Amino acid sequence: MQKTTDYAEAVKTKYPEQVVIAVASDKNGKANPITLGWTMIVSGNPPMMAISVAKTHYSIETIRHSKCFTIAFPSENMAEAALFFGSKSGRDIDKFAEFDCETKPAKQIDSVLLADAVANFECALESETEAGDHIIFVGKVVASHINTEPKKRLYTIGTNHNLGSATA
Amino acid sequence: MQKTTDYAEAVKTKYPEQVVIAVASDKNGKANPITLGWTMIVSGNPPMMAISVAKTHYSIETIRHSKCFTIAFPSENMAEAALFFGSKSGRDIDKFAEFDCETKPAKQIDSVLLADAVANFECALESETEAGDHIIFVGKVVASHINTEPKKRLYTIGTNHNLGSATA
Repeated sequence: MQKTTDYAEAVKTKYPEQVVIAVASDKNGKANPITLGWTMIVSGNPPMMAISVAKTHYSIETIRHSKCFTIAFPSENMAEAALFFGSKSGRDIDKFAEFDCETKPAKQIDSVLLADAVANFECALESETEAGDHIIFVGKVVASHINTEPKKRLYTIGTNHNLGSATA
Repeated sequence: MQKTTDYAEAVKTKYPEQVVIAVASDKNGKANPITLGWTMIVSGNPPMMAISVAKTHYSIETIRHSKCFTIAFPSENMAEAALFFGSKSGRDIDKFAEFDCETKPAKQIDSVLLADAVANFECALESETEAGDHIIFVGKVVASHINTEPKKRLYTIGTNHNLGSATA
């Protein structure tokens, strides 16, 4: 049976929620990662993925500048990186310089891949759409990479940025 | 370490992936449910959610007609309903007439809620954006409901529509 409640209360039922780390380069060539839970695949052929980024975030200008971005699925052992990248602003610091997270150059776009991630998807910006206090960016996947070792994907498993793995 | 691979191979790392059942009414007033894995929250204030629907699906015209839709988080015991609603077309049948799934009227929009779902969100259509072979619909959440009993959310836990719960 359903009971009407506040959105804030109802949305707590969403967990586990997937986590991605999106990376885009700013006008100085600095690769800037941001941790996001609001992401989805949007097209099968061609493959496309979307992310929703708060309008206030530095990532908005980096994506608009470089017109491309990486979507990495962090592995369960990357929770600290995910928290760091999600809580600092690239306006203030160079996140990859301040937090030890191995990267390698992307193949098809001007961005980087996360070496320890479960998978990395190189995306060429297709469109942006305003949605309330966020911008939805859609990217066409132009290259895909997976980890050579089997790893579990990282999820947000509860409120207050509680991160972990989600086992089926 | 990362190795380059096909998108189809890389995207298999996405599981568990959340499942929603979106419901919209067609021009005859028939409520039509569709099961979707491609969904995300897109805005915090006001709260908005998005779904990505294949261009060929009947749901495209139902959402465009009614300009609103329900997003239900099915509970883990709703796997059969999710498979049925995801594999049949509302062009051919009345899905709610053919599969036993209790509904009740939505409060703020012309749609229905799923009584056994973990949560239901009533959405007023805000925008649509083309993305490859799909259309992204963004809806503003105008009412929210949760189950009076604690239930686990349903996920796709692997390829071939393998559905189940995801435990943190």
